[in-house]
Amino acid sequence: MELGLVTSNAGKVHELAAVLEPLGHEVTQRELGYPEVQAPTLEAVVEFGLEWLAQHHPDEALLIDDAGLFVDALGGFPGVYSRHAWDTIGPAGVLALLGNGEERSAEFRCVLGLLLPDGVHQLFHGSCRGSITRVPRGDGGFGYDPIFIPKGDERTFAELPLAEKNGVSHRGRALAELVEYLGTSG
Amino acid sequence: MELGLVTSNAGKVHELAAVLEPLGHEVTQRELGYPEVQAPTLEAVVEFGLEWLAQHHPDEALLIDDAGLFVDALGGFPGVYSRHAWDTIGPAGVLALLGNGEERSAEFRCVLGLLLPDGVHQLFHGSCRGSITRVPRGDGGFGYDPIFIPKGDERTFAELPLAEKNGVSHRGRALAELVEYLGTSG
Repeated sequence: MELGLVTSNAGKVHELAAVLEPLGHEVTQRELGYPEVQAPTLEAVVEFGLEWLAQHHPDEALLIDDAGLFVDALGGFPGVYSRHAWDTIGPAGVLALLGNGEERSAEFRCVLGLLLPDGVHQLFHGSCRGSITRVPRGDGGFGYDPIFIPKGDERTFAELPLAEKNGVSHRGRALAELVEYLGTSG
Repeated sequence: MELGLVTSNAGKVHELAAVLEPLGHEVTQRELGYPEVQAPTLEAVVEFGLEWLAQHHPDEALLIDDAGLFVDALGGFPGVYSRHAWDTIGPAGVLALLGNGEERSAEFRCVLGLLLPDGVHQLFHGSCRGSITRVPRGDGGFGYDPIFIPKGDERTFAELPLAEKNGVSHRGRALAELVEYLGTSG
């Protein structure tokens, strides 16, 4: 199936294509500028986006992806607004907010929304527990990857090869749900 | 005129009523839960909200208010997402991000959106330059008021009597534009 990933972030297209193209699904980048609503959960943002896309682009197979880093000691900040925090205060801001605090646990979450031409909507979830470093490390990935170490590892997401990152990451896990769905739905 | 202020924030109703009621406009709080879109500017958020309200509540005179604190040294953070930052890291988080930095200039911005039963949309703007304190001070106002000192004063917004705050604040200035409009439009 040809899936249009609605995003302005080429890094996301790269991560999804690495998983979906070997399974025969072509992933293309679509910049459709759908509205992202301010909402307390990623699910609500993705649902709102799917409804808009279903109205404006009813005949395409489209995928949207929303993700965020939820830091426990910061009340879930930057969470749903991770992109805006990245654009303004950056990963350095998240490190400044934690200071020398010992409590550094965090969770990356991803919600994928699939819209099929027959109007079917489906959400897929993935999360990854881990902790925030004291300094950024690594050149891979994007966003907050250099300051996040997944549980059970000592490397940051930005230090993991993409295939390894996809094996444990929030996006990789949401993708695994999507792959299973596409497999069973033919 | 009876104006419904669409907000869950009673503090905003109080501030607007203090100005509008002496002029003969009754302000009531309406909790209509309109969607706030993620957008780079307050104007875009308010425009999107007005379009939604025009579709769903076409026969009412409604007012929406969006405001934010834009800190220069933080790339405009928390900006459009000031509410979310307040709910998570709070004013203490903004102070932590600035640390002992000397550059503490900031701007409060407010955009009011008016929707009249004849479908007229109108935006009103106000801003207030100032600086961020090193510790919170005062019990008045709401949100980031205890850490913001308007230019030309030494007191924080939270230390100013409401009438004085309305005289210089971002919301007060947007309100003055609105009052002028309501006066001239009968």
